This record gives sequence, structure tokens and C-alpha cells, in this order.
Amino acid sequence: MEQTLRVSVFGATGYTASELIRVLTSHPYAEITNLISSSTAGKAVSEVLPHMTHSIGDKRLLTEPEEDYDLAFLCLPHEASMELVPKLLKQGKKVIDLSGAYRIRNPQAYEEFYGFEHSYKGLLQEAVYGLPELFRKEIRKANLVANPGCYPTATLLALYPFVKESIEFESVIIHALSGVSGAGRKTRQHFHYPEMTENFFSYSVEKHRHTPEMEDIIKRLTGKDIKLRFTPTVVPSSRGMLSTVYIRTSELNLRELYMETYRFEPFVRVVDTPPMTKWTLGTNSCYIYPTYDERTSTAVIISAIDNLGKGASLQAVQNMNLMIGFEEELGLPKHPLYP
Amino acid sequence: MEQTLRVSVFGATGYTASELIRVLTSHPYAEITNLISSSTAGKAVSEVLPHMTHSIGDKRLLTEPEEDYDLAFLCLPHEASMELVPKLLKQGKKVIDLSGAYRIRNPQAYEEFYGFEHSYKGLLQEAVYGLPELFRKEIRKANLVANPGCYPTATLLALYPFVKESIEFESVIIHALSGVSGAGRKTRQHFHYPEMTENFFSYSVEKHRHTPEMEDIIKRLTGKDIKLRFTPTVVPSSRGMLSTVYIRTSELNLRELYMETYRFEPFVRVVDTPPMTKWTLGTNSCYIYPTYDERTSTAVIISAIDNLGKGASLQAVQNMNLMIGFEEELGLPKHPLYP
Amino acid sequence: MEQTLRVSVFGATGYTASELIRVLTSHPYAEITNLISSSTAGKAVSEVLPHMTHSIGDKRLLTEPEEDYDLAFLCLPHEASMELVPKLLKQGKKVIDLSGAYRIRNPQAYEEFYGFEHSYKGLLQEAVYGLPELFRKEIRKANLVANPGCYPTATLLALYPFVKESIEFESVIIHALSGVSGAGRKTRQHFHYPEMTENFFSYSVEKHRHTPEMEDIIKRLTGKDIKLRFTPTVVPSSRGMLSTVYIRTSELNLRELYMETYRFEPFVRVVDTPPMTKWTLGTNSCYIYPTYDERTSTAVIISAIDNLGKGASLQAVQNMNLMIGFEEELGLPKHPLYP
Amino acid sequence: MEQTLRVSVFGATGYTASELIRVLTSHPYAEITNLISSSTAGKAVSEVLPHMTHSIGDKRLLTEPEEDYDLAFLCLPHEASMELVPKLLKQGKKVIDLSGAYRIRNPQAYEEFYGFEHSYKGLLQEAVYGLPELFRKEIRKANLVANPGCYPTATLLALYPFVKESIEFESVIIHALSGVSGAGRKTRQHFHYPEMTENFFSYSVEKHRHTPEMEDIIKRLTGKDIKLRFTPTVVPSSRGMLSTVYIRTSELNLRELYMETYRFEPFVRVVDTPPMTKWTLGTNSCYIYPTYDERTSTAVIISAIDNLGKGASLQAVQNMNLMIGFEEELGLPKHPLYP
Repeated sequence: MEQTLRVSVFGATGYTASELIRVLTSHPYAEITNLISSSTAGKAVSEVLPHMTHSIGDKRLLTEPEEDYDLAFLCLPHEASMELVPKLLKQGKKVIDLSGAYRIRNPQAYEEFYGFEHSYKGLLQEAVYGLPELFRKEIRKANLVANPGCYPTATLLALYPFVKESIEFESVIIHALSGVSGAGRKTRQHFHYPEMTENFFSYSVEKHRHTPEMEDIIKRLTGKDIKLRFTPTVVPSSRGMLSTVYIRTSELNLRELYMETYRFEPFVRVVDTPPMTKWTLGTNSCYIYPTYDERTSTAVIISAIDNLGKGASLQAVQNMNLMIGFEEELGLPKHPLYP
Repeated sequence: MEQTLRVSVFGATGYTASELIRVLTSHPYAEITNLISSSTAGKAVSEVLPHMTHSIGDKRLLTEPEEDYDLAFLCLPHEASMELVPKLLKQGKKVIDLSGAYRIRNPQAYEEFYGFEHSYKGLLQEAVYGLPELFRKEIRKANLVANPGCYPTATLLALYPFVKESIEFESVIIHALSGVSGAGRKTRQHFHYPEMTENFFSYSVEKHRHTPEMEDIIKRLTGKDIKLRFTPTVVPSSRGMLSTVYIRTSELNLRELYMETYRFEPFVRVVDTPPMTKWTLGTNSCYIYPTYDERTSTAVIISAIDNLGKGASLQAVQNMNLMIGFEEELGLPKHPLYP
Repeated sequence: MEQTLRVSVFGATGYTASELIRVLTSHPYAEITNLISSSTAGKAVSEVLPHMTHSIGDKRLLTEPEEDYDLAFLCLPHEASMELVPKLLKQGKKVIDLSGAYRIRNPQAYEEFYGFEHSYKGLLQEAVYGLPELFRKEIRKANLVANPGCYPTATLLALYPFVKESIEFESVIIHALSGVSGAGRKTRQHFHYPEMTENFFSYSVEKHRHTPEMEDIIKRLTGKDIKLRFTPTVVPSSRGMLSTVYIRTSELNLRELYMETYRFEPFVRVVDTPPMTKWTLGTNSCYIYPTYDERTSTAVIISAIDNLGKGASLQAVQNMNLMIGFEEELGLPKHPLYP
Repeated sequence: MEQTLRVSVFGATGYTASELIRVLTSHPYAEITNLISSSTAGKAVSEVLPHMTHSIGDKRLLTEPEEDYDLAFLCLPHEASMELVPKLLKQGKKVIDLSGAYRIRNPQAYEEFYGFEHSYKGLLQEAVYGLPELFRKEIRKANLVANPGCYPTATLLALYPFVKESIEFESVIIHALSGVSGAGRKTRQHFHYPEMTENFFSYSVEKHRHTPEMEDIIKRLTGKDIKLRFTPTVVPSSRGMLSTVYIRTSELNLRELYMETYRFEPFVRVVDTPPMTKWTLGTNSCYIYPTYDERTSTAVIISAIDNLGKGASLQAVQNMNLMIGFEEELGLPKHPLYP
């Protein structure tokens, strides 16, 4: 008989936390014990986040945990996460960090791409990268899981069969699209509704934090320094993510390769038409469409996820299930909100 | 120990069916036994509705039920529903009809507003109107529940406290907004994406099917012929419904009245700011904001629901829970998809 | 032969200014001489507002006018406008104020609805309300025109035939919808794209600045204190405005009344189906649909405009044309951006 | 003194025609003489296209031209255009064809990509490709201009500096995004508003008509058979187009190259931040952002246009101006509708 897992959510007012709470409140064995939010502590959830009125509206937001718990989800800024993780581990908690603070093994990437020096370089090497399709075994034994970024999730799932089968590749170009919620809850002029509707554009074209994250994982798996060309683009949608990976390669049976790799994966489906992001809305699903363009000797692989689902909070719950020993699919929606 | 309830969904390819399937697949005691769709029978769900690939994609769509079942959801055109209902009742099935075919007791309304003569006038009198906040007791005993329209759900919940407390009222004006999904899955020129984005407009201003439905329910409850002025308006959103009810009345403590009426309702919350439709996305929730305008002696009551949630499929599952004797809130999402 | 009209735009970085500049740059006789923006003065337009790169991107934003000019458009906060107007009039400029600072004759309304005491009560009485269909003669002779609010423009055009023909009316209910751009360029949490998409809600239900503005104009025309019940609602669209006016009245031939009133108006069309806001996008057009509901003895009048077009900047140019003696329709787009 | 140019629009009810009419009605020297629409002939424009009520609503739609005219715009299906063009040329008309019927010199491309055999192979060789930045001289002398596709317009402008300066390149990857209006006015299930909102996806990944069009133009300019890898993607916006071109190449000063190429172009601006599509809404503008990624030796060039503006109807008017000898920029909006 399973027992209740008591969880705390740190940074409870952002979008990833909201999505996490949505799924946890209908998870059969999880119980949200503490909701931590330094900026709004003391208030009831329904005052700060009225959309949660019906679910956990009566709960109080706290400065720090008041009841005992087993596992912490960290939906905090990168540096805050970096500092909090070792403290929680010392207290014997299991930790799933949704920030970027423990995703990259190379500490210099933090200085270059995040703008701060990493204070826990040893812990960086121990953190397990929470992409179950690549690191399921390690996640099962982990106390600290670094939950992947949304772009890396979509892109690495599209790339992984090449890595797994040791197919030679270089010259990887990634053009990825994201809904606006990926940028978080903080308002910005260009995300003001009248400016963002009927608008789309690329950003961070020269330098984006998810590039070293993806390169780091490829290196962990292959030992090779592959350089990725990555262009993120924001489109007028709240959610959804589409990553297209272009790889120059000699002809190969892509469909068979992808079907084989993901045959037993509960959340990945290889499809034979280009996937729509709406198929994934509110779920932990990933759809992958691989095709080979003979004219230009290019493999084109398109993957679709919900950036807050498989790209963040639902993948975090998948990791929780694995870390605790629950059935992996437990409590994770499979049918999207549609239309 | 509860046992599995076997359900069939007739008309499985529309929007209300998709939303119904979403909730039923995560309901602890319901099992989707037959999916009926005459137009696509023989195909796998994933071929016709790829967004269901991960949930029930492998199921076959059928011409008629092939396995035994207990309860039928009808997501069919009005006339098709009208014809099928008596057949299913004779077979001993419980029936929840999401069409308008059994909502109005006055058969002449069908000729005037639906354009067909009703063939089962006796059954019309027996059907229970599936708005649990008004007819919970009757629903518990019903074999045939007519699931309410979306506009009537939002509006009657906003009006009900006046009826319940026998407060005199007349001159009711209802201005209601709906997302486009309320018009169903059938394409139309003005719902083509480029024409509907950045566009909003009223329609059926002179005559809408939901007017006699609302008047009929008020008559059932009060015995009075109240005429409603109702203006439906479509806005560029897939989902969401906002109904504003204006009632000329002498001053009264509206907030207390509404709080009192809905104190023990699990899905209705009286709030003290005007509600946002996004608070309800994908849930069975209803938010109501009542306010009294002294300057014009007008009660203004605003209610918000998800037109496919409380306004259709999730309310249908609430009705199912009541008819079967399950806990009323079972399997019904309370936390919206947000943002 | 017409000569060039030199105009200055004060508050050049907001949405109404942008729309004004769009139309002025293609107006045959207007020339934008000074663009004033205290917050960004010194920079080139293209640095601050890159969407203007192709039109007037090379112009410098100024702290105050550097070249002589004839007419000023004020796109400033209310209090800033209130203070600047008398100064500009003394300099002999003609002034069109797009703020609310000179719209209402009753100075107490400013204390109650705007939160400041009006310092120029005399000037308040002299300002002409810039709704040409109601005050064309006065506008032609005015030095100071108070450009109407967007809701009052749509609503007063829908109400005016009743006023003009001295038809008795009371119990006026106005339910109006607006795109988000009506709230201006300043970011707010609930207008953040992920929260505003798929969302709609009413606001300022108890008290909105446009209520006293509309009541004041009706009083100017009829001498009567009519109280209006007005509910503004925001929908997920950048632009567009739909105002529905409900008036209890005995039966009358509404269509004839409205056709007669607006027969010679270049920008108002009475139509026989409910209008869509998209028909007005980027134009100075207003569409009005009047209908009488016999069942409830209610006249229902729906008007559609572009809130930044006829509801703000294009109406300001219409006023400019009248004040200067240009042809009224000059430079004003009549064909909407579609789709 | 310029004289009036009389134009006819064939296929007057689609989106490109609507946008063409918008610009032509405010063009100082153009006059719309005949509006041809076989499917709706006999009706007034305002009956069929109520959004044109204020501009040319009173005009009648015709089966064929009834008044004499000088120039024809063809907004017809490809095969209808193919057949009509030689007839109009024989009548001495100048013709701007917005379909794909005369864009590609290689007639076999029509069989392979358009599904019909081209009946006028000689005329194919004479048609001038209407991209003024590449073929201005030829357009000035042309009687038949094939107006470019939207994707080719955005992409060729991004690629052209490489071609012009004979820089070696191969391995070109193009990932391009389009608003839904690019697919035309015909309704389809996946463009139904509820399904297209909050949704984005690639399509025609293996084969799209614009690939041979772009390759053909590159061959005309360089004599080389360059194969392009092109992935079109549709995003939830009515308008806008963003094309990103990836070219492996040794380092070069891209910014200087692009600035130099487009220095005197009135509608192309090289910018130093990634452009937003909203900057182009309703205009003939193109913004180009070139950047070089040293890590992967890849030139990344991003161009933004309005797919119905520079990508279709406004470019057609630019071509008209050139063919007739009007000033090239005449009547073409430069300030976008914003926000």
C-alpha cells in the first residue's frame, strides 16, 4: 500500500508552480504540505492567485516550511535555487529543481551564460539531469534532480536516437518556437497583450542559456564537443513548443530508428505527420516527426511538447514518480485540453 | 467498494465529446466502453483525432455499441438525440443528453426555435434538467438527464438566488460572451482563424435557442412567465463564458443572498471582484460576482464558467456522479489550466 | 490651394500617438513638426519605437517643441493635459486633447472619478466635445477640442438618435466590450500575454470614468439627468470596441430613425446585421445595428468601432480636418486592415 | 501631370484582393474600374464583403470587365491565372499575376509541384519576377509581372546579398513562419478558430511549391543549381512572416554586406536586433537582421514581412508603380497598424 508523499513547493506564485500544483492536487499519493512564497507570505492563495480558489485557495503562503515533508520542488530564480538546494539535501529532503542551477556540469557555463559564479561545483557533478527517456536509472536513485529546460527537453528528445545509436553527426541547426509562458510571469513591454498578439520574433539569437545545457548533455552521453546552432523564437500562444532539428547526414531509415528508440516510452510518440503543439496542451506528451530530405541530405526532426508540461512541471512530476518509486505515469494527464 | 461504470459516448468526434473523454479517462470509476461515430466508424481514434493519440488513440470508433454498458452520453445533433433517447431508455441505459432535445418542457419551443416537431412530448416532461445546483435531488433519481446549454448554465446560476428567495423581478437583461468553441467543430467562414482573431460580435440577437430554455426553467421554479432579453456575443477565445445579468430591483444585500444560496455548493464560488474566465479553464467551476448599482437601482450579476466545462461536458460528469451515486466531485478538475 | 498644417504630438510614445502618427504621415496636408516625449527625449524614434523605423524613424524625440507649429495633439496623462492646454491656447495654438481632462463640464466629476481637482474650470466650459456627429458646428469654430473617450464615442453614437428626436427614455443599460489597447501601453499583470489570451472579464463595474462623460453629454443635449448603467468588459483582442445599449421604450421604427439620423454622415453606417469589430480595424468607421425586441419592449442598439480609430486617434484627425477647414474625410482610411 | 490608371481586380473576394483594394483606394492615381468575381457576380460588394462597406461597398461584382482599363491584378487560382494571362496580354493590358502560374521558368515544376501541365511555356520565359529589389529594371519594362510568393519574398531578400556578391554558399536551410492568412480564405478544419488558437505546426515539410520558385530565381541570378532545405510553419496570427536562413560559410562582415546591398532600397531596412513581424503589419516593409555565429560557422539571417503586404498585395502595387512609371513608393503605407 502506497503512502502519502508530502511535498513542498518553493516559489509558489509563478507559472511552473501553478502547473505543478494543478497536477499534484489530482495526484493520488501526493499532498501539498507547504507552499513557500517569500513575496506574498501570510496571504491566502486565493488572494494572490484567484484562479486557485477552487483547488487550494484556502492554504496560506509561507515564508518557510511549517510542516514536515519529503520532497521539495524548487520554482525559484537560478541563484536562489543554487543556494537552497544543498540546505535541503542536508535536511534529508529529496529535491527537484526546476531552475537552471544544477543542469550543467561545466561550472564556467554559469559565469558565461547565467552571470554568476556557481558556489557548489561538487554538487553540480552529482545532480541528475531529469530527462527520464535519457537518464531513467539515475533519476530513480537520485536525491537531487535538475529538471531540464523546455527547449532542451524538446530538442534532446529529437536528437537522442542519433546519440543512442552512435550515428555520426555534426552541423546541427535547431530552430525552436515557444509560447510566451516560457518567459515566465514577469511582465515586459513586448509581452504586453496588444504588442504580443499578431506578433512573432526570434530573440537571444547569439546566446541563449539552453545552448550550453544541450551541449553538456550531449557531451555526457557521447564524450564529444558538439556545437549546436540554436535559434529560439516566440510566437503568440500562451503555451506550446516546437523544436525542429536539422542534421546533415547520409541517408538512413529515420522512422525505424525513432520508433525503435521510443518503443516503450510512455510519453513519447513517433508520428507520421508533423505534430501540432495543441495535441500536447496540459499533458506530459511529446510527439516526434522524423523525416529525411534526400535533396539536401538532411535529417529533419520535429518535436512538439507543452513547454509547461513535458517542458517543465509535468516532467517534474514524472521525475518525482521515478524518485519515489511510484508508477511513472501516475497522475500525469494524457488527454490534452482540446480545443 | 465502488465498481466500474461502463459508459458509451455517442457522437465522439465533436468538442464536447473530446472534453468528456478527457475527464472520463482520469475518472477513477468510469470506463469508456464504446465510442460511437457514424461518420468515422471503423477508424482508430488516433487517425481521426490525433490529439487523443496518447489517451485512447488505439480505440476503434464504432457505428453502434459493441460491448455492454451502463450509461450513455449523447453528443449528437438535436434531432438525432431526440430519436435515440427513448431507444436507449428502453434498453435500460441511463442517459445524459448534451444536445437541446430534452431541455424544454414546452414542445412548441422546438418548432419555433429548433425547427422540428418534437416526437416524444411525454418524455420531455420526464427529463430532468441537469443543473445540479437547482435540481440535485431529481438528478439523483433520473434515468434521463438533459444537460443544460452553456449560456443557461452561466445565466441561471447568476439568477437563481432571486428565484430561490422569491424576490420579485422583471425586466431581466442578459448580455453574455462566449468563446468560439461553443459553436462547435463545424467550420464557418467567420470562424476561420484570420477572420475571427481580433474580432468580436453579437449574433442571433433577435432569437436564440437558449432563451426559451432559460424561461422554461424559471417557469418550472416560479410558475411565472418571465421574458428575458438575451444577447449572445462571440469573442476571440476558444473557451470561456461570461454572463452578465441586469435586474431592476429595490436595494438588497446581494452578497449575503448569493453567499447564502451557494454556501455548500462545491463548484460555485461567490467572489468579491469580477471573475476572469481563465480562472475556469478546463474545470467545472463557476464564479459569481453580484453587485448592486444604487444609481440605477440595478442588480448586476456576473458569472464565469468554461463553456465546455461547467457549460457542457464536466457538468455532464457531475450529473453522472449524481445519477450513479458517486461522490459528486469525483474526477472533476478544480485547478484550471493556467496560464 | 491648401497649405501645410504643422502639427505637434505631445506624449508621442503611447498607442494613441502611434495611431495618430500613422494617419498623419499619409495625410496630404499635415506635417508632423515636433514629437514630444519627456521620458525618451533625445533619442531617435526608431530607437524607442522600432515599428516606426520606416515612417518617421529618423526624427528626434524632444522635450518641448523646437519648430513652430499650428496645432497640438495631446496624448498625455489627464493631469499633464489639464496643465498644458491653457499654456498652448495662450500661445495661439489649436489644441486637440485626447485625454479626459476637458471632456466633462461638471468639475466635481474630476474629483470623484479622476482623483484630482480641476484647475481650469472656466476652460472646461469652453472646450468643445469632439464628436463630430453631435457637435460638428462647434468643432469647426473651436480652438480646444476634447477628443471623446472610446466607450463614449461608440455609446453616444448608438444613443444619439433617441436624443436628437427627443424620444423619452430611461433605464439605459450599456454593456460594452473593448480590446486591450484601450487600457494603454503600460504593462499590468493581467494584460501579460499568457494571462490575457483566452481570457475575458469585466472591470470597474461600480465606477468608470466614462460614465460621467456620457451622462454629461446627454445632459448638454437634453438638459436631463439621465443615469446610465455601464459595464466595461475587456476581451482578448488588441483593438475593437462593441457597445450594446438597452433602452426600455415603446415600439418604434428604429431602423428608420437611425437611417434618418445618420443619412449624411460619412463615417457612420446603419447596417442590418450585427456588426463585427474587424470591419473597423484601422479605420474611422462606426457601424450601428438597431433592433427592437417586442417580447421585452427593449430597443437593443449595437455599435462597433476601432477603439484607437473612431474611438481615439482617427476621430482626432477628423476633428483636425474640421477645425482647419479641410475636407472632413481627408486622409482617413475607410478600408479596414482585413483579415 | 499624372493621369488616372484604371485597374481591374480579378478574383476580388480573397484576402490578397482585399488588401490590394485597401491600398488602391487610397492610391492617388489608381482607380478601381472593374471588380471581377465569378462566384458572386451581380451582388454589391457590401453584401459579400461587409468590411468593404465604407470603401467600395456600393460597387457591383462582375463576371467580366465592363469598363475599359489599363492594368489587371489577378488574384485567381493558379490554373485560372495561367489561362487568363495570355488573353489579357493580347488585349494590350498590363498584367500583375499574384498566383504562382508564371513564377517558375522550368515548366516541369508545374507538373511536379502544382499538379498541372503549363500550357504557355513560352510566356513563362517572358514573365518578369516581381521582386523589385532583384529585378527592378526588368519590371519597369514588363507587361507581365509574376508577383512573388510570400515565403520567397522574405527568403530571397534574406539571401540576395550572398548572390549579388557571388559569395560561395551551399547547405542552405530555411525555417520560415507564417500567419494563417497566407493559406487563403478557404476554411479548413485545422484553421477553425478554436483549433488554431494556441496552436502551431509545420506542414508540407517534404514538398512545398515555394521551394522550386526560390531555387529557380537563384539559378536565374547565379546559373547554379542550389538545393534549398525549406520548412514552412504556421503560427496563430492572421498575418506576419518570419524567414530564418542558415548558411554555412566562412566568416564575413555580414552587417556591412547587407547594409551595402540595401542602402538605397526604400522598403528594406537592415536592423541590429531581431525584427518583430508586428513592425510590418499592413505595410510593404521588410526588416532584415543578419548575424554570424562563429561557434558553428553559420550565417543566420532573419527577415520579417507582412505576408499580405510585401509578401503579396503591397508588393503588387510596388510593381504597378514601377510598370507605369509612378514614383515607386506611391500610395504604399510605411507605418504599421500598431499595436
